[in-house]
Amino acid sequence: MTEKIRAAIIGSTGYGGVELIRLLLRHPHVEITSVISSSTAGEPITAGFPHLAELLPMDLDGIDIPLIKSKADVVFTATPHGVSTAIVPELLEAGLKVVDLSGDFRLKSGDVYREWYKKEPAPSAYLEQAVYGLAEVFGEEVAGKVFVSNPGCFPTATLLGLIPALAAGLIQPNSIIIDAKSGVSGAGRGLSLSSHYAEVNENFKAYKINQHQHTPEIEQVLGEVAGQPVIVTFTTHLVPMTRGILCTMYAQLTDKLTVEDFISCYQSYYKGRPFVRIRRKGNWPATKEVTGSNYCDIGFAVDERTGRVTIISVIDNLMKGAAGQAVQNLNLMMGWDEALGLDVYPVYP
Amino acid sequence: MTEKIRAAIIGSTGYGGVELIRLLLRHPHVEITSVISSSTAGEPITAGFPHLAELLPMDLDGIDIPLIKSKADVVFTATPHGVSTAIVPELLEAGLKVVDLSGDFRLKSGDVYREWYKKEPAPSAYLEQAVYGLAEVFGEEVAGKVFVSNPGCFPTATLLGLIPALAAGLIQPNSIIIDAKSGVSGAGRGLSLSSHYAEVNENFKAYKINQHQHTPEIEQVLGEVAGQPVIVTFTTHLVPMTRGILCTMYAQLTDKLTVEDFISCYQSYYKGRPFVRIRRKGNWPATKEVTGSNYCDIGFAVDERTGRVTIISVIDNLMKGAAGQAVQNLNLMMGWDEALGLDVYPVYP
Amino acid sequence: MTEKIRAAIIGSTGYGGVELIRLLLRHPHVEITSVISSSTAGEPITAGFPHLAELLPMDLDGIDIPLIKSKADVVFTATPHGVSTAIVPELLEAGLKVVDLSGDFRLKSGDVYREWYKKEPAPSAYLEQAVYGLAEVFGEEVAGKVFVSNPGCFPTATLLGLIPALAAGLIQPNSIIIDAKSGVSGAGRGLSLSSHYAEVNENFKAYKINQHQHTPEIEQVLGEVAGQPVIVTFTTHLVPMTRGILCTMYAQLTDKLTVEDFISCYQSYYKGRPFVRIRRKGNWPATKEVTGSNYCDIGFAVDERTGRVTIISVIDNLMKGAAGQAVQNLNLMMGWDEALGLDVYPVYP
Amino acid sequence: MTEKIRAAIIGSTGYGGVELIRLLLRHPHVEITSVISSSTAGEPITAGFPHLAELLPMDLDGIDIPLIKSKADVVFTATPHGVSTAIVPELLEAGLKVVDLSGDFRLKSGDVYREWYKKEPAPSAYLEQAVYGLAEVFGEEVAGKVFVSNPGCFPTATLLGLIPALAAGLIQPNSIIIDAKSGVSGAGRGLSLSSHYAEVNENFKAYKINQHQHTPEIEQVLGEVAGQPVIVTFTTHLVPMTRGILCTMYAQLTDKLTVEDFISCYQSYYKGRPFVRIRRKGNWPATKEVTGSNYCDIGFAVDERTGRVTIISVIDNLMKGAAGQAVQNLNLMMGWDEALGLDVYPVYP
Repeated sequence: MTEKIRAAIIGSTGYGGVELIRLLLRHPHVEITSVISSSTAGEPITAGFPHLAELLPMDLDGIDIPLIKSKADVVFTATPHGVSTAIVPELLEAGLKVVDLSGDFRLKSGDVYREWYKKEPAPSAYLEQAVYGLAEVFGEEVAGKVFVSNPGCFPTATLLGLIPALAAGLIQPNSIIIDAKSGVSGAGRGLSLSSHYAEVNENFKAYKINQHQHTPEIEQVLGEVAGQPVIVTFTTHLVPMTRGILCTMYAQLTDKLTVEDFISCYQSYYKGRPFVRIRRKGNWPATKEVTGSNYCDIGFAVDERTGRVTIISVIDNLMKGAAGQAVQNLNLMMGWDEALGLDVYPVYP
Repeated sequence: MTEKIRAAIIGSTGYGGVELIRLLLRHPHVEITSVISSSTAGEPITAGFPHLAELLPMDLDGIDIPLIKSKADVVFTATPHGVSTAIVPELLEAGLKVVDLSGDFRLKSGDVYREWYKKEPAPSAYLEQAVYGLAEVFGEEVAGKVFVSNPGCFPTATLLGLIPALAAGLIQPNSIIIDAKSGVSGAGRGLSLSSHYAEVNENFKAYKINQHQHTPEIEQVLGEVAGQPVIVTFTTHLVPMTRGILCTMYAQLTDKLTVEDFISCYQSYYKGRPFVRIRRKGNWPATKEVTGSNYCDIGFAVDERTGRVTIISVIDNLMKGAAGQAVQNLNLMMGWDEALGLDVYPVYP
Repeated sequence: MTEKIRAAIIGSTGYGGVELIRLLLRHPHVEITSVISSSTAGEPITAGFPHLAELLPMDLDGIDIPLIKSKADVVFTATPHGVSTAIVPELLEAGLKVVDLSGDFRLKSGDVYREWYKKEPAPSAYLEQAVYGLAEVFGEEVAGKVFVSNPGCFPTATLLGLIPALAAGLIQPNSIIIDAKSGVSGAGRGLSLSSHYAEVNENFKAYKINQHQHTPEIEQVLGEVAGQPVIVTFTTHLVPMTRGILCTMYAQLTDKLTVEDFISCYQSYYKGRPFVRIRRKGNWPATKEVTGSNYCDIGFAVDERTGRVTIISVIDNLMKGAAGQAVQNLNLMMGWDEALGLDVYPVYP
Repeated sequence: MTEKIRAAIIGSTGYGGVELIRLLLRHPHVEITSVISSSTAGEPITAGFPHLAELLPMDLDGIDIPLIKSKADVVFTATPHGVSTAIVPELLEAGLKVVDLSGDFRLKSGDVYREWYKKEPAPSAYLEQAVYGLAEVFGEEVAGKVFVSNPGCFPTATLLGLIPALAAGLIQPNSIIIDAKSGVSGAGRGLSLSSHYAEVNENFKAYKINQHQHTPEIEQVLGEVAGQPVIVTFTTHLVPMTRGILCTMYAQLTDKLTVEDFISCYQSYYKGRPFVRIRRKGNWPATKEVTGSNYCDIGFAVDERTGRVTIISVIDNLMKGAAGQAVQNLNLMMGWDEALGLDVYPVYP
């Protein structure tokens, strides 16, 4: 066996962080050498996460670049927006490999970042350096790189569901409406009334209509694929469940097309990629069918009456929407099999 | 006090039926005199519903028209599709008032019914006689009538959310996309894998895409309002919760319009109606905010970038989407205040 | 109709407070004249609770005794422990009637309060004045009084389930083990990791084992009933649901007894009381069967093999465990029918 | 690598069956060669379980002993009670290794089986041959055997939580009260009103009080450990969640003992066993902390006031309570590391 690379996780006490730990603990080529949390440094990680008892008997480190440098080869930054902006450049300058899970390096335009995130963007040199790690689409660009920006959860589900059709010219770019639904873990472990159990349970609601910060990320990539600017309608909803994203996407067809045309187009586009599964006609994926795994499952319906296609895609937001895709990107960066360590299958029911 | 009218409920062991019982037990002008179930006649209703202990110490009757005639003045038929078709005409011929909660008398065209419900329609004379009881829109037609067809749960939320805009010409009729989400109680008390706890909990999925039987009901009414045929895209999803429907509706604007234009239009349309509440700008309703009540709450977002409006409407599917609206219709039929007995406020949280 | 009394609610933006609003809005003899919140005074209550739109168009007041005095005849104090200690004496001295929903006036001994609540107790004169408002047991003492201490949620379920058996000598006092389970709303609207959706959902846990502050309240009342000190084992658990408490209680029988003996004993004890329902043999209550209502349902199992009885009691913690019982106490204080305004039946499912 | 053994799963379309598939798909020494279902033979298993798409492209077989014999070396029988009784002897006679997950071979006395299961027991020769596979207690007896009876879910959580204390004489055998709580998946995939979403969600209830068929299994093993007959009080409750069992167990201490005494006793008893984790003082396990994993976590509280200990144990009912423990038993039967293929860590949150 090759020597293991040493990994540090900044933000390891968030949900994305502990999911990374679940994966990296079993990854054959990786060893977790530092778990980092600015707020609870010095405590054992098991104090806040007893499920890690005996699995990771390790105290939390603070954010200390020289210390990280001495302990790790690669760093996952699972930090809130606006925090990675400052840390990531330092890590890169210290010669570390970085997979950033925040939204700070996904948008190529600092101005667009400022508009949607209401924060100052990272220096443009780093925005340019960051490779957008949607592995099934840009995986070849990731190979061998030292800095990958991991896609957002909603963009992952949305883009994997739309790109093949858009690239093949099956749908009209500016007719796209994305009705997205997410479990509550997407909002993280930070306390807020909108994640308070009695407010969320037995409740369903929309939020940030037309204002979600993932909108420009989706439009940036769709525009790149379409070769023209694409503007979408994007609505997010909160589902009373912990994990899972389902996107229902509507678009006007460019021609008389059938479900079979879409299935064939997508099977061809994703041929050989282990984490996208295309459903047969009349079958649409449910979020539970990917829970705990790195899959994105996609299904289709075409309505002759309206000339529209309905595309359904599902992911586990903490896996393919965060930690799973981050590990997949690490694998690609290192030149390993992209599925390495990701043999965690859906937990059903 | 006026003498109470006597009410019978056919299908009283379904969820719509027990919700009717909850309401009618407290209605000042109604007395429940017969609860009817074809499958468990002879048993006390509390055998299957212990929550009714001491509230309704009554045995279930079978479906026996002369017996019903002797016991009741009005009958609520909360029966599965295809059952009301046969029973309702008999009840009407016996001189009883009827509020039918099934889908059997909502569509004016027997052919359309046959196509979407895959069953034989009721005789057309009865289809014509049935008044479609969407109280806020057709309430004046309901007044004094003896036979009302209670709207479906999805059509209620959808139509209340779309009609004012369509009637006022604010949106393009054939651009309408309805992304609907429902709690599980909408599927009733009958057992099926898709209502099995471990399959539904911590899961979210779409179903019957482009095929839901409520589609032609929505299109029939929208077409009537628009004065031209309207074809919609309609998708239904199952939310892991018991009660509640939220519809996210998208349409292309006919002009440069603002959220304020929509608020003003809807406030005017629903002026004086006690059960529709319009949200202020930037605020959208959540299902829990109407749970247990007869309210339909509606909010708006307008996107200048796309020229589309997003309309959110919520109801409790068992209340405004079934039993609550049925009682409201009874009130209108009898010439009573439409809110009588409906002072059951949202149970929050 | 008699003139309405004017009611103020301190702590009206907590879950107990909004449940009081739901009830008092429909109470025939009460008018809500002031809703009070120290943290959000000046805002409309609908800002935080849109479900009250059009039902209670009222701004929140601050805690201002003269203002309360000018607006109200009775005050409900739905405040956190340690807050009522200071406010209630002032309200009483101002001549207001008070129903206190906190734990500050339930224990007769200030020392015991200090030990379990880790706070300073209220002056003993007020502790003595407070009538413990477990209506089915001490209702006659409540009648005509001006100050009632509303029982805790766990004590209500526990005491109603144990007192008849203990009073009749059917069970051994010091053999009692109470295994209690509660929905999350019992922890209130304040944010904490233990009420964070992703931590609670699909999870079940015990908390405060042998340390819950309701323990001495239970023991005080059981001791009074038994005529000797009673020490219990009391464990609380958190159920992934919003409303409901179920207590499973175990005790050693004093003699060869049957389920029928218990049913007969309890039916006799609670004869004429509208809110306690005794289940028939082999039938045990579920929390949903009382949700939204003021009922406490109780069932029994006797095991000949072990000589133990198992008693199951359920309540809605926000109703019979808080707001419902508070209204019941107001009714008794005023000499009204104890069920007035409490005709809110279980919302099922 | 050693050659893989071939495994067949009877009852592979139940929840225990699909969990076995999740584990065996990744087991380094096992290959799934037949998935068997009497009701849906001939269909692809992915028809009912789309989450297995591309993971197990295999059609279901019927129950055909010669076919099984030709395809497999070991058979997991995840069948309902009363079905294994007939099948298992045939499989054994055909020379196959068997891990039985039903309750048919756990009780050594056919009479006791008949009394609690209301079915005819298996022939006593097979009852005697079956090794009770509670690995941490009887693991040495399992090694090298060909037929293991996998413990029930409640007995696993209960026995692991009680045996060390009972064996060490810390608790009085006949004072034991077990208050058990389970998620709904324990009831399987078969449809019933008690697993119907709208009946279970936002609900909590007890069932089968003093009558659960796992009672004699618990008593048989505790009696064996104590060297005298042990009779327990055992209550089961249904929690509105999919996975997880938590048992709260009460017993009278035999002496003045502390939590530290229990921790020390249990750490010693389970030394070297990878799947039992003992919590430190003041910390009690929650079900989510073991979800998806094979762990059993145990915590303690001692109450000086009552002289009782409270023991909390948690497992994932489909893992340590079924499929996980079955794989652990296979490992022991084969002489492999007992943790092989069980590196599936808790999925949190």
